[in-house]
Amino acid sequence: MNVEVGVLGATGNVGQRFVQLLEDHPWFELSAVTASESSAGKPYREAANWRLPVEMPEEARDIQVESTDVSSISDDVEIVFSALPSSVAQDVEPEFAEEGFFVASNAGWARMDDDVPLVIPEVNPDHLHLLEVQEDERSWNGGLVKNPNCSAITMTPTLAGLQSHGLSEVTVATLQAVSGAGYDGVTSMEIIDNVLPYIGKEEGKMETEPRKILGEFTGAEVEEADVDISATCNRVATVDGHLENIWCGFTDAVDAGGAEEAMESLESLDLPSAPEEPVVVRPEPDRPQPRLDRDAGEGMTITAGRVRDDGSGVKYSCLSHNTIRGAAGASLLNAELIARDHL
Amino acid sequence: MNVEVGVLGATGNVGQRFVQLLEDHPWFELSAVTASESSAGKPYREAANWRLPVEMPEEARDIQVESTDVSSISDDVEIVFSALPSSVAQDVEPEFAEEGFFVASNAGWARMDDDVPLVIPEVNPDHLHLLEVQEDERSWNGGLVKNPNCSAITMTPTLAGLQSHGLSEVTVATLQAVSGAGYDGVTSMEIIDNVLPYIGKEEGKMETEPRKILGEFTGAEVEEADVDISATCNRVATVDGHLENIWCGFTDAVDAGGAEEAMESLESLDLPSAPEEPVVVRPEPDRPQPRLDRDAGEGMTITAGRVRDDGSGVKYSCLSHNTIRGAAGASLLNAELIARDHL
Amino acid sequence: MNVEVGVLGATGNVGQRFVQLLEDHPWFELSAVTASESSAGKPYREAANWRLPVEMPEEARDIQVESTDVSSISDDVEIVFSALPSSVAQDVEPEFAEEGFFVASNAGWARMDDDVPLVIPEVNPDHLHLLEVQEDERSWNGGLVKNPNCSAITMTPTLAGLQSHGLSEVTVATLQAVSGAGYDGVTSMEIIDNVLPYIGKEEGKMETEPRKILGEFTGAEVEEADVDISATCNRVATVDGHLENIWCGFTDAVDAGGAEEAMESLESLDLPSAPEEPVVVRPEPDRPQPRLDRDAGEGMTITAGRVRDDGSGVKYSCLSHNTIRGAAGASLLNAELIARDHL
Amino acid sequence: MNVEVGVLGATGNVGQRFVQLLEDHPWFELSAVTASESSAGKPYREAANWRLPVEMPEEARDIQVESTDVSSISDDVEIVFSALPSSVAQDVEPEFAEEGFFVASNAGWARMDDDVPLVIPEVNPDHLHLLEVQEDERSWNGGLVKNPNCSAITMTPTLAGLQSHGLSEVTVATLQAVSGAGYDGVTSMEIIDNVLPYIGKEEGKMETEPRKILGEFTGAEVEEADVDISATCNRVATVDGHLENIWCGFTDAVDAGGAEEAMESLESLDLPSAPEEPVVVRPEPDRPQPRLDRDAGEGMTITAGRVRDDGSGVKYSCLSHNTIRGAAGASLLNAELIARDHL
Repeated sequence: MNVEVGVLGATGNVGQRFVQLLEDHPWFELSAVTASESSAGKPYREAANWRLPVEMPEEARDIQVESTDVSSISDDVEIVFSALPSSVAQDVEPEFAEEGFFVASNAGWARMDDDVPLVIPEVNPDHLHLLEVQEDERSWNGGLVKNPNCSAITMTPTLAGLQSHGLSEVTVATLQAVSGAGYDGVTSMEIIDNVLPYIGKEEGKMETEPRKILGEFTGAEVEEADVDISATCNRVATVDGHLENIWCGFTDAVDAGGAEEAMESLESLDLPSAPEEPVVVRPEPDRPQPRLDRDAGEGMTITAGRVRDDGSGVKYSCLSHNTIRGAAGASLLNAELIARDHL
Repeated sequence: MNVEVGVLGATGNVGQRFVQLLEDHPWFELSAVTASESSAGKPYREAANWRLPVEMPEEARDIQVESTDVSSISDDVEIVFSALPSSVAQDVEPEFAEEGFFVASNAGWARMDDDVPLVIPEVNPDHLHLLEVQEDERSWNGGLVKNPNCSAITMTPTLAGLQSHGLSEVTVATLQAVSGAGYDGVTSMEIIDNVLPYIGKEEGKMETEPRKILGEFTGAEVEEADVDISATCNRVATVDGHLENIWCGFTDAVDAGGAEEAMESLESLDLPSAPEEPVVVRPEPDRPQPRLDRDAGEGMTITAGRVRDDGSGVKYSCLSHNTIRGAAGASLLNAELIARDHL
Repeated sequence: MNVEVGVLGATGNVGQRFVQLLEDHPWFELSAVTASESSAGKPYREAANWRLPVEMPEEARDIQVESTDVSSISDDVEIVFSALPSSVAQDVEPEFAEEGFFVASNAGWARMDDDVPLVIPEVNPDHLHLLEVQEDERSWNGGLVKNPNCSAITMTPTLAGLQSHGLSEVTVATLQAVSGAGYDGVTSMEIIDNVLPYIGKEEGKMETEPRKILGEFTGAEVEEADVDISATCNRVATVDGHLENIWCGFTDAVDAGGAEEAMESLESLDLPSAPEEPVVVRPEPDRPQPRLDRDAGEGMTITAGRVRDDGSGVKYSCLSHNTIRGAAGASLLNAELIARDHL
Repeated sequence: MNVEVGVLGATGNVGQRFVQLLEDHPWFELSAVTASESSAGKPYREAANWRLPVEMPEEARDIQVESTDVSSISDDVEIVFSALPSSVAQDVEPEFAEEGFFVASNAGWARMDDDVPLVIPEVNPDHLHLLEVQEDERSWNGGLVKNPNCSAITMTPTLAGLQSHGLSEVTVATLQAVSGAGYDGVTSMEIIDNVLPYIGKEEGKMETEPRKILGEFTGAEVEEADVDISATCNRVATVDGHLENIWCGFTDAVDAGGAEEAMESLESLDLPSAPEEPVVVRPEPDRPQPRLDRDAGEGMTITAGRVRDDGSGVKYSCLSHNTIRGAAGASLLNAELIARDHL
C-alpha cells in the first residue's frame, strides 16, 4: 500500500508529533503540510520551531508549507491528519471531507455528532461504518473520523474490557501532563511546585466520549453505553503522560484478578502503529509512572496497575502517552484502519 | 499561661516545623529538644541541618539537644511534641506519658487505639475526654493525644460539615507534596517529570482515621462514623501542600451550594494557633492550588474549591499545608486545647 | 511623610508585586493603578488575575483601574512606579515625567541614558543627583529614575564592596528564575526537566548596567567603572530567585576572607524597605539556594556564599529575589530615597 | 569479535545503564553481573530495582547476580565494567586487574594515577599505551582504564579541538542533572523550585582531569596540558544531561567561527558505540538544552552551541548525557577501544 497523506496544522505540538510518527511509515507518505498563512511558502524546517527530543525527519525538512486551505492540497493526497485547534477545525475539516479527503482528526469539535465515528481501533473498529451513514447524510466525497480526547483515550481501553462484567459507574481523577495543553498552554509559573486543579472543558469530554466509544453500533447509529462517569481533572508538572486514578462500579461483582484479566483481554490489531499489547497491567505496587511507562509500545501501549478490590467493584490507575496514543498516534491508527478497510 | 514544652525528634522535617511554630508562642516556651544519640550534647543550631526558608528561631539556637529518653527531660516540661518516626514513637511515647508528660504526637502508631484521642480541635474537641478513659486504663500520669495523618487531616474538616447532610460515602484521590515523606523520603529522580502513584500505608490511614474523628464520643468510647471511604494516593512534584479530589455520597440529596455552606460552617476556636477560618471555600474555578493556597491562615486554613453537583452528591477539591496543618501545627493545636482545658 | 503613589502596569507580574509591597507602607499610599484599555474602569480585584501566594491587599481591591495615560492620574499622586513593558514604557514614562511625576521605573529602556540615574540606593545614592542634570536637559517637571535589570541587581551590590580592591574583571553565569520573564514568559514545556541556555538581551544588560552603577558621579555625569564583564545567562526551573556564579579579577591580589569582608561592608540605609543587611555572606558550603534564601530580609537582602580563592582573584555565588530586590522592591527603594531627599 | 563481559555494581543507576547499553552489543556478551552480598544468588531481574524508561534487556533478566568478588567471576570473562562507588572500587578493581581482567571503570579513584590511562577515545586514544607502563609497574595480568567524571567529560572533547589555538584558560559553570548523584543522591526537597550551588569534590575533578586527558603521552608518561581551569558546579532540576557554560582564553586570538570549526574537527571512531559526530555545534541561539539534546547520537554526542566572541577568547555552552556519554557509555567506548587494539 502506498498512500499520500498530509498534516493540517503541522507546526504545532501535535502537528510535530504527526510528522515524527510518519517518518518511514510503511503505508503512508507525507507529501503535504499546512500551517497558518504566515508560514505558507516556507520549507517545513523553517516554519516549524521543532521541539521534539528527536531530530526532524529528513523527508519532512524540505516540504513546502501550504496555508490550511483545501485548494492548496493536491488531489493525490488521500488522507489528511488534523492537528488544528477545534475552532479552526470546524470550518476547515468539512471542506476537506467534502472535497474527497479522509480526515483523521484530533480536534475536539464534532466528536459527539451522530454520524461521526469516534474510534479507538482496538475498542470499536466497527464504528467506522458510521462513515457510510455520514456519506448518506452529508454527501461528502471523503469522510471525517475522530479520535477521543487524550484524557478519555487513556482510560477507555481499560474500561472496554470491563464492560463484559457489567460496568456501570466510573469515577476518575486525572493527573495530566502539560503537553496536553499545547506548547504554550501552561506557563512555568503555573506548574513549578504546583498543581492546576482544573482543565477547561476536559471533564465534560471524559464524561461523554467514552459512552459513545463503548456504545453499540446498530448499523445506523451508535447507542451510548449506559455508564455513569464523573471526572475531576488536574494538571501536574510532567511533560508527557496522563495518569488516571479510576474507581469502577459494576452490575455484577468483580474482583481485582478478574478486572486485570478483562483489561488485558483487549486484542491487538495488525496495523503498523498498533502496539503488540494495547493494555498492559503491571504487577508492581508503584506503577504506572509517567516517566517510566509513557513510552511503552512506542507510546501506543496503555499501562495499568494497582488493580485492587473496592467494595464490590475495583479501583486502579492507568496511563498513556498523551501526544502519541492520546493524539497523533490515535489519529494515525484510525487512518491505518481506514486505509486497510475503506480505501 | 506559661507552659514549658519539648520537641521529641526535633532535627527532622516535622521537628523543625515544631521549633519554627513555637517561636514567640504566647503560651508555650520551648525548653527541651531531643534527637538521636549522635546529636546529644550539641546545641540545636549544630545538630539540626536547618532547611526551612525562614531563619532558625533565636531562642532555639542554643538549646542543648538531649537524646530521646524520658530521663533526660526536666520535670518542668509539661507537654512534649512528638515528631518521631512511628517505629521509635511506639516505644518512647508511652514512657513519656507514664512519667507525667502530655504527649501531642504526630506519629502514626496508636491513632486507632480505643483510648487514644485522635483529634482535630475544630472537629472533635470532645474526644479529648478519652484522656480520662486512657488514665483509667493505663494508669499514666500524663496522656497521649494524636493528630491524624496529613492526608486525612486535609479532607476531614470539610467532611465534618457535610455530616449534617447524611454523608455516607467518600471517594478521594490525593496529589501529595514530597515533604510529607520526610526530607529524604522521595528522591529527585522519582519525581522530576513524574508522579508516584503509590504511597505505602497512606490509603489505609485515609480510609480509617476520618471514621474515628467524625465518630461520636459516648462518654466511654468513640463510635466510628458510618462513612465508607475509598482512597487512592499519589505523590507529585510539589514541596508542600496536599491537594485532594473528593466525591461525596449522602443519604440525603445535597447540592453544591449546600455543601459549600456546610463546609464553611465549621467554627474557629479561640486558640493561639487556630486560624480565623478553619475551612475557606474559594469561588475561582481553578483553586485551590498548592503554591498559592497552602499558606492560607499561616498554613492552618484548609482551602476548598470547585464544589460541584455530582448526581445526588457533590464533588470538590481541598488542600492543606501538610507539614503545618497536617503535622506540626496539628499537634500544636491539640496541645493548646489540652493546655486550656486539661492542665 | 504621606505621599500618594500610583502603579503603572499594575496587573502583571511585577505590577502585582508593587501592589503587595505597598501594603501598609509607612510613607506611601497607593491611590492609582493603571493597566491596558480593556481593564480600565474595573476595580483592581477584578482586573488583576492575582497570582501571588499572599492575599491581595484590602486597600487595593476597590481601587478603580485607569488606562495607562497621564491624563487619567490625579495630580495628588507624586510618584508612579512603572512595571510597564519596555516598549510601552518608552512612550509613557516621559509623558509622566514631563507632567511632574517622579517615575521609579523597572522598565529596561533608557537605563543607560546619560542623564537618567540608574540606582541601587545602598550602592550609588549620589547618582540621584543626575535628576538635576535631567531637569536641565529635558525641562521635565518630574523625573525618571531607573533600577537595573534583575540579573544585574543581584551581583552589583557584591561587586560594589570589591571595588576597593581594584575589581577589574567579572565573569558571571546565571541560573535565573522563571518569574523574571513575566507570568507567561516561559512555558512549562520549556522548563520541566530542562534548562534554557539563553535569555534574549539579558547578557548585554549584565555587561553594561553594573559599569554605570559602579561608576563615579562627577557632578555632571557618570563615568563608567573600568570593569570588564562577560555574562552567560540561563533560565532554570525555579519560581523566584536568581542565582549567579561569579569569578572576579583584580588589579590588587584579594583572598576569600578579604572579599567576604568587602561584600559585607556595604551599609544599610534608613529607609522603610531597606533590609538590615544589603549583603549577607553565608558560611555553609551549599548556600545560597533559591528556595531557602530568596526571602532573606523580606526579599531585599542579597545572599552570597561559597567565596573561594581563585588564582589571584576570587569566585563566589550570590542570589537575590528577582521580583522583589530585582524589580518591584528595587523601584520602591529608589522611590523612598527620592521621597526622603528630593520631594 | 565475541568477548564475554561483566558489570560490577550492576544494580545501581550507572550499573543499569551498562546493562542497557550492552543489549545486543555486536562484540560484547554480558555474562556476569555483581552486586552487594544481599543480592547474590538472585536473578538480575529480582536484584535490580529497574528504573530506566526502557524495559530490562531480555538477556539480562535471568543472569544470576554474584557478589562483587574476583573469585566469583568466570575466567571466560575478559572485560569487566565497574559502576562501583569509589570507596569500594579502590579495593576491588586492583584485584580484578591483577587476576587478568581488563577493568573499564567509571569510579573516581585512581583517575589521576600516573600509570592509569584516563581516556576519551576520540580525544586521547594513545594514552591507552599507559597500560604497558601499568603492566610493568604493577605486574597485573589485566589492566585498569578510567573514564573521566561526567562533568569533565562533557567539556573536554570541545576543549580538545581548541587546543590547536593555544587554549590556556578555562572558566566553567555547570548546571548538572540529578542522575549524576546516583539514584538517591539528591532528594526531591533539595531540588524542586531550587538549585544546589555545590557538588562535593566535583570542582576539583573538573579542574584536574581535563589537564591529564588533554596532555601528551611521551611513551612513558602523560605530561599534563598547561591549561588553567576554574570550575563552579551546580545541581539543577533535570533528570539527565549536564549543561556547561564555558569561557576560554588562548595564547593566540580565536574568534567564534574558528572555535566552532575546531570543536567540530574532532573525528569519530569506527567503534560500535562511537557516535557519528562526537561534537555537534548547533546554530540556534537557544541550544543546547538538556531535554532536547541529551539523546543526540544515542546519548554519545556532545552538543555545543552559543559560541560567541569574548574579548580575544570565546565563550560557549555544551551538554552531554551524563549517564551515557558521561558514565556507562564512556566506559563502554573505552572497552571497545581496548578490545580492538589490546586484546
